[in-house]
Amino acid sequence: MEKKPVKIVTIGGGSSYTPELMEGFIKRYDELPIREIWLVDIEDGKEKMEIVGAMAQRMWDASPYDVKVHLTLDRREALKDADFVTTQFRVGLLNARIKDERIPFSYGMLGQETNGAGGIFKAFRTIPVILSIVEDMKELCPNAWLINFTNPSGMVTEAVMKYGKWEKVIGLCNVPVGAMMKEPETIGKTLDQLTYKFAGLNHFHWHKVYDEHGNEVTQDIIDAMYEGKDGGLPANIADVPFFKEQLDTMKMIPCGYHRYYYRQQEMLAHGLEEFNDPEKGTRGQQVKQTEAELFELYKDPNLDHKPEQLAKRGGAHYSDAACETIASIYSNANRHIVVTTKNNGAVPDLPADCAVEVSAYIGATGAKAIAFGELQPAEKGWLQCMKNMEHCVEAAAVTGDYGMALQAFILNPQIPAGTNAKRVLDELLIAHKKYLPQFAKKIAELEAEGVTIKDDVARELTEKGL
Amino acid sequence: MEKKPVKIVTIGGGSSYTPELMEGFIKRYDELPIREIWLVDIEDGKEKMEIVGAMAQRMWDASPYDVKVHLTLDRREALKDADFVTTQFRVGLLNARIKDERIPFSYGMLGQETNGAGGIFKAFRTIPVILSIVEDMKELCPNAWLINFTNPSGMVTEAVMKYGKWEKVIGLCNVPVGAMMKEPETIGKTLDQLTYKFAGLNHFHWHKVYDEHGNEVTQDIIDAMYEGKDGGLPANIADVPFFKEQLDTMKMIPCGYHRYYYRQQEMLAHGLEEFNDPEKGTRGQQVKQTEAELFELYKDPNLDHKPEQLAKRGGAHYSDAACETIASIYSNANRHIVVTTKNNGAVPDLPADCAVEVSAYIGATGAKAIAFGELQPAEKGWLQCMKNMEHCVEAAAVTGDYGMALQAFILNPQIPAGTNAKRVLDELLIAHKKYLPQFAKKIAELEAEGVTIKDDVARELTEKGL
Amino acid sequence: MEKKPVKIVTIGGGSSYTPELMEGFIKRYDELPIREIWLVDIEDGKEKMEIVGAMAQRMWDASPYDVKVHLTLDRREALKDADFVTTQFRVGLLNARIKDERIPFSYGMLGQETNGAGGIFKAFRTIPVILSIVEDMKELCPNAWLINFTNPSGMVTEAVMKYGKWEKVIGLCNVPVGAMMKEPETIGKTLDQLTYKFAGLNHFHWHKVYDEHGNEVTQDIIDAMYEGKDGGLPANIADVPFFKEQLDTMKMIPCGYHRYYYRQQEMLAHGLEEFNDPEKGTRGQQVKQTEAELFELYKDPNLDHKPEQLAKRGGAHYSDAACETIASIYSNANRHIVVTTKNNGAVPDLPADCAVEVSAYIGATGAKAIAFGELQPAEKGWLQCMKNMEHCVEAAAVTGDYGMALQAFILNPQIPAGTNAKRVLDELLIAHKKYLPQFAKKIAELEAEGVTIKDDVARELTEKGL
Amino acid sequence: MEKKPVKIVTIGGGSSYTPELMEGFIKRYDELPIREIWLVDIEDGKEKMEIVGAMAQRMWDASPYDVKVHLTLDRREALKDADFVTTQFRVGLLNARIKDERIPFSYGMLGQETNGAGGIFKAFRTIPVILSIVEDMKELCPNAWLINFTNPSGMVTEAVMKYGKWEKVIGLCNVPVGAMMKEPETIGKTLDQLTYKFAGLNHFHWHKVYDEHGNEVTQDIIDAMYEGKDGGLPANIADVPFFKEQLDTMKMIPCGYHRYYYRQQEMLAHGLEEFNDPEKGTRGQQVKQTEAELFELYKDPNLDHKPEQLAKRGGAHYSDAACETIASIYSNANRHIVVTTKNNGAVPDLPADCAVEVSAYIGATGAKAIAFGELQPAEKGWLQCMKNMEHCVEAAAVTGDYGMALQAFILNPQIPAGTNAKRVLDELLIAHKKYLPQFAKKIAELEAEGVTIKDDVARELTEKGL
Repeated sequence: MEKKPVKIVTIGGGSSYTPELMEGFIKRYDELPIREIWLVDIEDGKEKMEIVGAMAQRMWDASPYDVKVHLTLDRREALKDADFVTTQFRVGLLNARIKDERIPFSYGMLGQETNGAGGIFKAFRTIPVILSIVEDMKELCPNAWLINFTNPSGMVTEAVMKYGKWEKVIGLCNVPVGAMMKEPETIGKTLDQLTYKFAGLNHFHWHKVYDEHGNEVTQDIIDAMYEGKDGGLPANIADVPFFKEQLDTMKMIPCGYHRYYYRQQEMLAHGLEEFNDPEKGTRGQQVKQTEAELFELYKDPNLDHKPEQLAKRGGAHYSDAACETIASIYSNANRHIVVTTKNNGAVPDLPADCAVEVSAYIGATGAKAIAFGELQPAEKGWLQCMKNMEHCVEAAAVTGDYGMALQAFILNPQIPAGTNAKRVLDELLIAHKKYLPQFAKKIAELEAEGVTIKDDVARELTEKGL
Repeated sequence: MEKKPVKIVTIGGGSSYTPELMEGFIKRYDELPIREIWLVDIEDGKEKMEIVGAMAQRMWDASPYDVKVHLTLDRREALKDADFVTTQFRVGLLNARIKDERIPFSYGMLGQETNGAGGIFKAFRTIPVILSIVEDMKELCPNAWLINFTNPSGMVTEAVMKYGKWEKVIGLCNVPVGAMMKEPETIGKTLDQLTYKFAGLNHFHWHKVYDEHGNEVTQDIIDAMYEGKDGGLPANIADVPFFKEQLDTMKMIPCGYHRYYYRQQEMLAHGLEEFNDPEKGTRGQQVKQTEAELFELYKDPNLDHKPEQLAKRGGAHYSDAACETIASIYSNANRHIVVTTKNNGAVPDLPADCAVEVSAYIGATGAKAIAFGELQPAEKGWLQCMKNMEHCVEAAAVTGDYGMALQAFILNPQIPAGTNAKRVLDELLIAHKKYLPQFAKKIAELEAEGVTIKDDVARELTEKGL
Repeated sequence: MEKKPVKIVTIGGGSSYTPELMEGFIKRYDELPIREIWLVDIEDGKEKMEIVGAMAQRMWDASPYDVKVHLTLDRREALKDADFVTTQFRVGLLNARIKDERIPFSYGMLGQETNGAGGIFKAFRTIPVILSIVEDMKELCPNAWLINFTNPSGMVTEAVMKYGKWEKVIGLCNVPVGAMMKEPETIGKTLDQLTYKFAGLNHFHWHKVYDEHGNEVTQDIIDAMYEGKDGGLPANIADVPFFKEQLDTMKMIPCGYHRYYYRQQEMLAHGLEEFNDPEKGTRGQQVKQTEAELFELYKDPNLDHKPEQLAKRGGAHYSDAACETIASIYSNANRHIVVTTKNNGAVPDLPADCAVEVSAYIGATGAKAIAFGELQPAEKGWLQCMKNMEHCVEAAAVTGDYGMALQAFILNPQIPAGTNAKRVLDELLIAHKKYLPQFAKKIAELEAEGVTIKDDVARELTEKGL
Repeated sequence: MEKKPVKIVTIGGGSSYTPELMEGFIKRYDELPIREIWLVDIEDGKEKMEIVGAMAQRMWDASPYDVKVHLTLDRREALKDADFVTTQFRVGLLNARIKDERIPFSYGMLGQETNGAGGIFKAFRTIPVILSIVEDMKELCPNAWLINFTNPSGMVTEAVMKYGKWEKVIGLCNVPVGAMMKEPETIGKTLDQLTYKFAGLNHFHWHKVYDEHGNEVTQDIIDAMYEGKDGGLPANIADVPFFKEQLDTMKMIPCGYHRYYYRQQEMLAHGLEEFNDPEKGTRGQQVKQTEAELFELYKDPNLDHKPEQLAKRGGAHYSDAACETIASIYSNANRHIVVTTKNNGAVPDLPADCAVEVSAYIGATGAKAIAFGELQPAEKGWLQCMKNMEHCVEAAAVTGDYGMALQAFILNPQIPAGTNAKRVLDELLIAHKKYLPQFAKKIAELEAEGVTIKDDVARELTEKGL
């Protein structure tokens, strides 16, 4: 049977990652015959979308394939009859990220975009938007797959399933890709020789590895990494090693983001150092600079392929994972990809109906999660803590319940509970007022109480309405 | 890396199915370079093993491959350094099966080899033997895979994991193979276009089917089967249709053995009819005849390929499934095969550490079970009932606790609880005395009480020590 | 603090058990100062209500207390500002019970009012009515407690919680009362010396017993009962002993109704014997006679106390348990009573939000269920099977889904699946047409197909519109 | 039946709390007719035991009852035929507590005896000792109840059940007692009017409260406490209020120890302030002073009743709770007491076989835990995190696995993971070397590496072998 040509819609099309996405699609055209790509963005992102959209069209034009890249601010026009909708938008743009980072740091706690207070607020801003996208999809493309790589990818994907009642969704992350690209060579193997089993949550998973004879080599990789081999840490995570004694007992390899939890002291110190260094600034501030440079490159009418510089971003491979997933669904290829999907029991320590990030075989029916089995106590405790923290965040994101937001803050391991935690919550509410209509009443109260933002950079951005 | 040539050991090598196994290995030689095959049997099976062993060697000799088939009564000699051990033995041979069938039928309840009282007793006889094989394996081939297709495959495999503490075991069954061979054409598809998701227990699973676009086609197959299309029922199950209204609500396709539960009245009537027909006799009696004919054929020194007649047996494809599994492990092929393996959460309605029969991807690490998710109430109730019944059976098989055996009988849906149930239990204990040392004390008591076997055929076999 | 006098409403006030209820209230007046009792019934029950209502008023008049018994057909008038609502109604009266019994028996399967097909249909008739009562209560007496002893009490109570979203409900049963009244003397103890722990479902629970030193005496009671001591079997259950070997392994005492499951053969035979004996008839037919006699007695204007004859009914002590529960709630007495309530984990083998029948301490907040802990495999299997069967029944009762009704029938251990099961389902639908509006469409189809009722008695009752 | 007089054994009999225990027994003599009390201590505690033992005998002599208080260093002599064994010992005495507090504080993290690093080490020292007591009990008093109030009471009690395989154990805590003594008056009620429902873990539970009509008054109490009413905070916890918005969402009242988690910042600051104040010192240092004063008082040969000063200790009411529990078991009184016991499903968010601290009815069979039902996400997350942390601690305490100890440290919310956490772990190992034979090998390594204790007080105590 002839498969119909594919319509892809990318919400947040003005992202600097779009060229990686295009490259991924071009590479897989034989398996995934795309007809049209729609980049969608909002008014504030229009300029960037036009730059990157032109660049995207040049990439296709330089390829052997005839694909049209459409640019639009009208999401509903784009969604009509879509086959795959990818979401890579950032509500509030990089300025919001900078606030997510600087306000917690200004009170001596981790400021980061997917962990701690910042991650919670990214969810608060993103979940209402993704739920409105889902409402549009129910009407305009009810058979489409939603491939989310908007962070915090786990919570956003879970909200789509749980509050949006949308089953055809897969959440993606580049972290497992990085591990699988680098680890095999630490033990002199290639990826295709190894079997990987991942389980956990987005940015909070562990994995085990086996060789081509089925023998577990997890410990060999651990040992090799402690002899200085590169295990594939994302660019945005400071390289603080885990305690080897911990890993030897755990008998699993944690993901890079676990550093925020297992080496909290050092990661916080590292972050504070950058925060306090006016030359450097937080990751968001650095990225803003990188992004500006990237868009300058993208403007070059002769550039028709993904530039090297993009790979420096922490999110590298996100788009590639998305393309791989889409291709694997379309062609029913059943390839092993690590995705966020409905648990269904794969991680039996968590409810069957929540979202988990696990090894899965991806085919026409979506993700077939591999049953991982029960975890040991320490990992079980972490996982159950984090999943419930996520549930609190999602509930607060949907209802705007301040007490629930406070519960999420207090349960979050990156946030030392107390006056400062509440203060950070309050300042972030004020800083992101524009994108948090669900909390409008509480924000008004806080403003009436005269709560102001302590960090200068964040306060100025807010005052300028950025 | 060069993979080392493979040593296969087949316990119960005198089985009439051995040629199917050989055919399966020959077909897959390129993927699975076997060096030697050891057929093992006991004294009582020596003659049959010699016949089928010679035939097996002829099959290899007729192939392009140089493989030696060894015959032995010394299990330990065979197991030494084995890579794969397959188990297809039948404790007590077909005469035991005939007793398993006739004694329950003589009290008006289902006599069948894997369901009801007969299945329970097959487990009682088999579990101690498989556990002793596992003990040998721990010593002689600690890295080997145990591929079990001895029935009741689910309980036997679970006992290996739970009581034998042996992790590298996979249980096989031909029932899913049959469904997947026949169902696709009922809706004009080929198997490779479809995605199958199986979940449940051995001889007690359900499945859902999806097309190449990911759309569920379970209902289409159900509808097609009720328009007369063949859905792949095993040869040993009378073709009594399920109630369509039930399937329409269930939205899954039950396995053939579910007929014993969903159409209990008719299946019992059918079995009793054969039981009461001296020309026909029970399935075991019929199979005994078929087997005799098969062995006559096997004696033919010119026969060097699997004869057509073997396909008539209910167990057809068992061996093929075994070969496919072994090849898929050896070559790390990650093919979808339905196997009995550790649950690990794949069926979240059952404990994570029990055995389930589910869709899995089979590779070097064994079975990666696909997380199926929660079942609807009716199927959940059936499943939890049956799994706990299995737990009772296994406990009684290991301990010889008569009260626990009675609990299993009373919980088993094929056995109407009461005096007759207890009587059947007692007669079966006496009939299988030779193979039930764990129950020796109770059997002595029953003999002292003068319990005798009512059914003439079963009694005579017992009196003759068969 | 002065407690306000209590208003009791009894739905199904025309029941022959009402005098027991009155007696129970009179006995407990000091603890439970009732001001007014409202008996509510429907037009068809008006005459009986008037008889028993006059008798009830005479009972109070003969007591030292000034309590008014109101009679009404207007449920809403009665419910206004009620404190406790007891439900003891029987949709379709005893004729419905007779059909529930005779139609299954006519196909050789158990006909009984709370087990098997009859119990399922009693639920089908009752659940919609109790849900409409709950809707009235939400409006008219939102703080009242609903004390249900309408059978099948477990499913009806669960439906109130699950579909009616009404938390303040307790289900009652007389079976535990009977056991606790009789068992202590079998070991020479009094009830107040013993600690009872019950767990399971309504008419499907087990218990353990401990002496005043905390030593378990369950086995002593089992042993005593097998030496001929009376363990408190309800009058409506034939006295077929359990297999002692089963109980010795189980280490718990099953309830009387477990005989239908553990001695299915004999219980069925006993029922069929009565069914086939025109002198005797089914239990419903016998009760009809008893009831007529009771109402003759009640008509006696001089009778002002509960007559001896009432105790002969199988439901004896139901009302007493209800009075005890109400008094214990009102006075916050925290007495141990066995009730159907929300599980909350008390039986961890079942979902936390389902209904279970367990030992509880009853006080102002209702039932505080005692956590029983995990069951052994056999009991776990039975329990999970039955609870899921109940879920199917409730779903079918609420939706009128025929396939779901069929699923319940097929899963129910008292119903051998097959043509006869479906036939019984169909005949019962037709027989109870008047009380099953939710199944109207399917019933019309069955009538169009010409399905008729085989049993003469049931058919005639139906034809007469009874 | 005459009940036999009771033999009580108190391990750690030299504790300053012993007079409270005596007072509790004297008060309850009618219900609990004690014959003899054995105080047991070790050589290091001999002097204190003799002082407090003499005082205890004076208390009994001043009472109307003839009870003999025996003092011994021979635990086995004391345990012989005991009915109740209470455990209130402190391995390493108060000096160990001081180290548990000062070493974490010296790295800026909470030093406290039951929370954080200190609580973990108290478990490491205590669990091996309690397990050896249990081994003695199996031999010398196999029917006795073990009533533990040695902290960390939850982990110690769980270890007794899980590793000691001893079922008859109840863990006690004074925190719920304090709440129930103070809260009722905040809403103008008395305790006997209210129903309390507690659930959680030791020093980590929440509760709900209901009035005599069954209406929930939890929020009323919360509101009242925020209007300045005293809710019963233990003396050893600084009075930092919870955020009211959190409690309003939680709809439960946390225990006092939750301040360490919900107001971490302030509690840490408070602790550090005392730590850094040489006049004050940590709680352990303060208590050492209080204790010295108490023992001076106890020496007074005229003192024959519990002195007022004892009530100032944080552990007040511990002993009273123990006496109440023992009396309630002995007399089968079924009183509501909050205890640590086997979960059995009472807290369905945790495994059925772990230990929880919950509302229970205490009688001859021990604790009948009330099924509490599922918690909301935030509390569920906290609880599952803490329970798994406890599992890691117990595993490390039993095995001496350093990696597991590190896992416990990293998971513990009071310990910011990183170099300092590891350093604190290492220093505590060295500081408590004498009481941690299970970690001997690792401690030797650390000593070889030259790890020293930074805090002067802790280092000096260690150097002096205290």
